[in-house]
Amino acid sequence: MRTVVIAGVGLIGGSFALALRKAGFTGRILGVSSPRTIEAALARSVIDEGVTLEEGCRRADLLYLAQPISKIVGVLPLIDGFVRPGALVTDAGSTKAAIVRTAYVSIRRAQFLGGHPLAGKESRGVEVADADLFKGRAYVVTPGDLSTDAARTFIAWLERIGAVPLVMSPEAHDRTLALTSHLPQLASTALAVALADKLQHTRAAGPALLDSTRLALSPFDVWRDIIATNAENIEAALDAYIATLEDVRSRLRTGDLNTAFETAARFAAGLRS
Amino acid sequence: MRTVVIAGVGLIGGSFALALRKAGFTGRILGVSSPRTIEAALARSVIDEGVTLEEGCRRADLLYLAQPISKIVGVLPLIDGFVRPGALVTDAGSTKAAIVRTAYVSIRRAQFLGGHPLAGKESRGVEVADADLFKGRAYVVTPGDLSTDAARTFIAWLERIGAVPLVMSPEAHDRTLALTSHLPQLASTALAVALADKLQHTRAAGPALLDSTRLALSPFDVWRDIIATNAENIEAALDAYIATLEDVRSRLRTGDLNTAFETAARFAAGLRS
Repeated sequence: MRTVVIAGVGLIGGSFALALRKAGFTGRILGVSSPRTIEAALARSVIDEGVTLEEGCRRADLLYLAQPISKIVGVLPLIDGFVRPGALVTDAGSTKAAIVRTAYVSIRRAQFLGGHPLAGKESRGVEVADADLFKGRAYVVTPGDLSTDAARTFIAWLERIGAVPLVMSPEAHDRTLALTSHLPQLASTALAVALADKLQHTRAAGPALLDSTRLALSPFDVWRDIIATNAENIEAALDAYIATLEDVRSRLRTGDLNTAFETAARFAAGLRS
Repeated sequence: MRTVVIAGVGLIGGSFALALRKAGFTGRILGVSSPRTIEAALARSVIDEGVTLEEGCRRADLLYLAQPISKIVGVLPLIDGFVRPGALVTDAGSTKAAIVRTAYVSIRRAQFLGGHPLAGKESRGVEVADADLFKGRAYVVTPGDLSTDAARTFIAWLERIGAVPLVMSPEAHDRTLALTSHLPQLASTALAVALADKLQHTRAAGPALLDSTRLALSPFDVWRDIIATNAENIEAALDAYIATLEDVRSRLRTGDLNTAFETAARFAAGLRS
């Protein structure tokens, strides 16, 4: 792997570039982004050179699509004419079924492997890109032929940057993330909406409320594509959550909530072990 | 104020004692607790002496009740025969209406002012008591005659330990805390319960889920009394939350969630400003 092309040099794409460098990658790293982002990425030495998508496709051993989901879905059909046989195309989109489905019909000359690093920050952009972003984090890779040179090289670099590769089908990924990421987001957003409507004394807010509304700070443009491409799983997750809240509500008057607290604490502790 | 008696030398009671000392209080601090807690509190120099409740009442200029709510409600009717006229009795219970109602009919010889420091930690006990726990935190005080010597002295000490006194009626406090504290707790507990039931891949959990389930680690014995004494307000808060989640669910398919995200982000940012 000599040339890595990052399309979308934001927090994730930029962090992947920095992480590769830190892990000893000595090849070329090219970026495909807006002129302003390319300038910022060059200024921070995140990339060596800005290129067009077409030139990037022609030169990439690894083409890393780190744009928003809708952009990735739009770009995939454009690149098969340019990518080199033997190259690996991968992405970092937050849902996998829509992207992998599109890649399956679009990418013939190169190999495609879907990906999703379970890492992030509250801020966005190449300015906050971080070589250690993936360290210790799960990195979902969708099933494919992992025995090719390109796939083995990619997985080896994931491990070198400290990520923990986790092969998961696009469907299992989207179902799981609806529960572990999309539901917590909407739970926090809805909590903030309900409180914005009801609350008079925000001076009486303690640390619990700050924690519970941290995700609510996320702007919708990060979530629009995720919701659009995973609505069915998110709906099922919300159904389960609302049913649990209704059960909790029905037990308030009797105080019969010991089992719920125990189950919750055991689950929360398990996540941390 | 020469003698402060802390009944319930745990995280809150112990922290109040340490905070007074750090702020320059040179009088005596006595503790009323189990023998084991008294021993630990003496070993950490949190209190000067362990006493019985009766002796504590007889000697206190300030009697600070920092036990669980049900214990405070049980202790209030026992102390009026012992407390000194001119003394101030206060409490640190997490709901106020039930306690203030009980105090109103129980405490005649001394003055009572309800209180609730909006501060806490994940761990409990005098072992984690912290002189800086109240620094920068709101400290709710229920209405009463704040012009007495005892009340003015108490409020002045609250300010010296870095707390921000906030006079609020018991009813407004309980309604507000149902939204800012009790609802976030149950939202987190219910999220963890729903996920415990549905989730197969906990390896695919990112930082968002850890944040969202931090409150779910709380044991029920902290919450039993809060729920028992504030069920009606909590039910109304849960109603509003469930209605908001249902609205979010109904908008998933159309993606019409921009307004909800904007309202939520504005509210969450406002809490932090």
